[in-house]
Amino acid sequence: MKRLLIIAISLSPLINFSQTDQDVLRDIYKQSLTNSKSYDWLNYLSNEIGGRLTGSLNAEKAVAYTKAELEKLALDKVWLQPVKVPKWVRGAKEHAYIETGPNGFNTGKTTTVNICALGGSIATPALGLKANVIEVKNFEHLKTLGRENIAGKIVFFNTPMQADLIDTNEAYQNILNISKRGALEASQFGAVGVIVRSMTLTLSDFPHTESMTYENQAIDKRIPAAAISTNDAEVLSAMLKLDESIKFYFKQNCKQLKEVTSHNVIAEITGSEYPDEYLIVGAHLDSWDLGDGAHDNGAGVVQSMDVLRLIKALGIKPKRSIRVVLFMNKENGLDGAKKYAEGVKQNKENHIFALENDAGGFSPQGFTFNCSDSNFNQILHWKALFKPYLIHYFERGTSAENVEPLKNDHNVLASLKTNSQRYFEYQHAALDTFNTVNKRELELGAATMTALLYLFDKYGIN
Amino acid sequence: MKRLLIIAISLSPLINFSQTDQDVLRDIYKQSLTNSKSYDWLNYLSNEIGGRLTGSLNAEKAVAYTKAELEKLALDKVWLQPVKVPKWVRGAKEHAYIETGPNGFNTGKTTTVNICALGGSIATPALGLKANVIEVKNFEHLKTLGRENIAGKIVFFNTPMQADLIDTNEAYQNILNISKRGALEASQFGAVGVIVRSMTLTLSDFPHTESMTYENQAIDKRIPAAAISTNDAEVLSAMLKLDESIKFYFKQNCKQLKEVTSHNVIAEITGSEYPDEYLIVGAHLDSWDLGDGAHDNGAGVVQSMDVLRLIKALGIKPKRSIRVVLFMNKENGLDGAKKYAEGVKQNKENHIFALENDAGGFSPQGFTFNCSDSNFNQILHWKALFKPYLIHYFERGTSAENVEPLKNDHNVLASLKTNSQRYFEYQHAALDTFNTVNKRELELGAATMTALLYLFDKYGIN
Repeated sequence: MKRLLIIAISLSPLINFSQTDQDVLRDIYKQSLTNSKSYDWLNYLSNEIGGRLTGSLNAEKAVAYTKAELEKLALDKVWLQPVKVPKWVRGAKEHAYIETGPNGFNTGKTTTVNICALGGSIATPALGLKANVIEVKNFEHLKTLGRENIAGKIVFFNTPMQADLIDTNEAYQNILNISKRGALEASQFGAVGVIVRSMTLTLSDFPHTESMTYENQAIDKRIPAAAISTNDAEVLSAMLKLDESIKFYFKQNCKQLKEVTSHNVIAEITGSEYPDEYLIVGAHLDSWDLGDGAHDNGAGVVQSMDVLRLIKALGIKPKRSIRVVLFMNKENGLDGAKKYAEGVKQNKENHIFALENDAGGFSPQGFTFNCSDSNFNQILHWKALFKPYLIHYFERGTSAENVEPLKNDHNVLASLKTNSQRYFEYQHAALDTFNTVNKRELELGAATMTALLYLFDKYGIN
Repeated sequence: MKRLLIIAISLSPLINFSQTDQDVLRDIYKQSLTNSKSYDWLNYLSNEIGGRLTGSLNAEKAVAYTKAELEKLALDKVWLQPVKVPKWVRGAKEHAYIETGPNGFNTGKTTTVNICALGGSIATPALGLKANVIEVKNFEHLKTLGRENIAGKIVFFNTPMQADLIDTNEAYQNILNISKRGALEASQFGAVGVIVRSMTLTLSDFPHTESMTYENQAIDKRIPAAAISTNDAEVLSAMLKLDESIKFYFKQNCKQLKEVTSHNVIAEITGSEYPDEYLIVGAHLDSWDLGDGAHDNGAGVVQSMDVLRLIKALGIKPKRSIRVVLFMNKENGLDGAKKYAEGVKQNKENHIFALENDAGGFSPQGFTFNCSDSNFNQILHWKALFKPYLIHYFERGTSAENVEPLKNDHNVLASLKTNSQRYFEYQHAALDTFNTVNKRELELGAATMTALLYLFDKYGIN
């Protein structure tokens, strides 16, 4: 790309805005790209602490670390909010194989495959579980097959994410229920276990976990559920086509323990003019255990912390109170989000704006807003301010789950939208590590979040 | 990012366009994301052939491979256009170190550093070159220092790319001349060699090469030039601050050989209504030798090939003649681009539109256009068609170099604009390998290029 394009990222006056807003946005982006803490913080969270499964010691290490780092920023307040959380543990690594033999006779020939227990699942029996397998597309397909084809078997949900959708998250949402409720649904037809194709668009050897639920199902009716890597899902499917009498064996050692006390981490810059109006920026501090939770949601955590640091570094004095909230246990029940919202209600804190990034540390494209028409019109008026930074996506939509409990009739909830093409390669798998996060992309996200928060602080909401 | 956003990538009717254009674009994207050849082709180019330095055997392998693959597509014509190209070879790997000692006395203590010869540079003397070093910012700084501070020394240009520019290519363009003309300028002041800080925004151990020129300088005045990794540039700079008498040693073994005959690879679908109007899509087939040229410019090559394949696969019958042109020797003189343009002129072929991607296989954001006001207005009318695919950047600008020689008063030249944040991590270094290219991002780029070409074929130019 040599001597190629002199692309005009114009910083020249946009006539509809005060010079001040343009200047401030330029300063925010410059500061973030040249003097950021996000990347260093993420390095520590990912490589010194690692996976931060809810209820784990690592999750508490992350609480202590982020609190200590926020305390260094000389904000007005930093505190922990206790939250009761479930504690599910994976135990020893799972083991699984496909067993073949003529007419179902066990020749001892096995093909090892890569699986991981779904979060919340029960273990298999101590010696593992071996059964015939039936490949199923979805819950409709389960019904069509009926108990006569399913009872005593392991149900193998093999529905790939749809590759032709531009937003990979849409493809993910479309099949998420299979992981979440697959065991519950399949057990109604007598299945003894469930194997779900990992939700990623790539063919890989790494399984991707997901949370699942038994709701109020009787304990003796519950069946174990695991995710299988996409490569191994292809193998299993191909082998089933050759011989439907093959057997699948898996052993997983996970366990639901007693609930424990964890924490939301909260820090505040108190507003100078309207301290009773709150704007928050946040992400979830817990992660899955397989990787380091670098994209999910370490990136959002460090960006949210950096929003307050950037505001301080640039000498901006917020009119309203600005908080960073690092929510505990997004992945297994949203307890931190609910707890924070309870506190807000009890203390009658008027939260006018809440922003989160739970979409990884990729290049920011814009925001999705959950708000009224009037508020959305106000936001669209700001869109041109973001053009020099290639931030173009300003659309209505549902908000992310951590801030969702704060929704009321007049406030604005927003989610950062990032480039989603690579996200599901890493999410919930051992692949979600620091080296997959690009420093500049992370910093551009932090700047974009800071810029929007700055505008809401300055102008309030309609 | 679980249960998060149902983002509406709406495919619902855009009232200003015929249903047909929306349908065709949707089909193009779907086909590219579910049935692409780009990624497989790139795998072969990168991993089976590898770096394709102009004049090398590998470059000719790439000519033969892409021609053979294009022939499989049942297009109307596939042919090679001979091009005379320079042949510069790196020879044995470079070696360099920093030597320290009290008051310039050689204690034998050395720090090895990573360098690579700039393309087109002469070798050092056979035993290498050792001299004192002077750190310089730019050509103005050279003048200020003058011959008395420079003569007999190695000039070390240590200007980093500017991190606060959003478009990394702008930061690159701003300092590109230092690599290109550094040896020529420094030798005027008696320098004996030139070391240039690698043009990447990351701190890394890998040097990034670049083309350089001696213009018509007398052969005995020419001095060798190399790039040093950013990590080692930091080390050298820090050591110079401690002791300006340290010496730098480097040995490089590169050589300019006789020019050789290489080829542009060209394939055509002949137009059904206006066969004398040509639309081309292209990229450069040569690359640097250090990596595999996966992003630069393998990605553009396979995407350009895929444009014609997608058109065939979708059953689109172009009204105008559509060509893919794979240009030889972009990196060391643009001979292929010039040769193709000569042929166009000789044969009076009316090229109304030329598109290239020389910006890597990253997520497409839009296009830069070099065209008249009237043509640009026509293009803006199509912008909304691209919104479902998050393609938003439609701006005027200079065009990329391979198609630049085709410019005339009435035609349209366009360059794909991709997300530039990661590009310079890889460009011209050993790091430019297949594994850094994301399949979906590559496919989205191919689809975006195909969509624009489709519109120009259907509507022509104003």
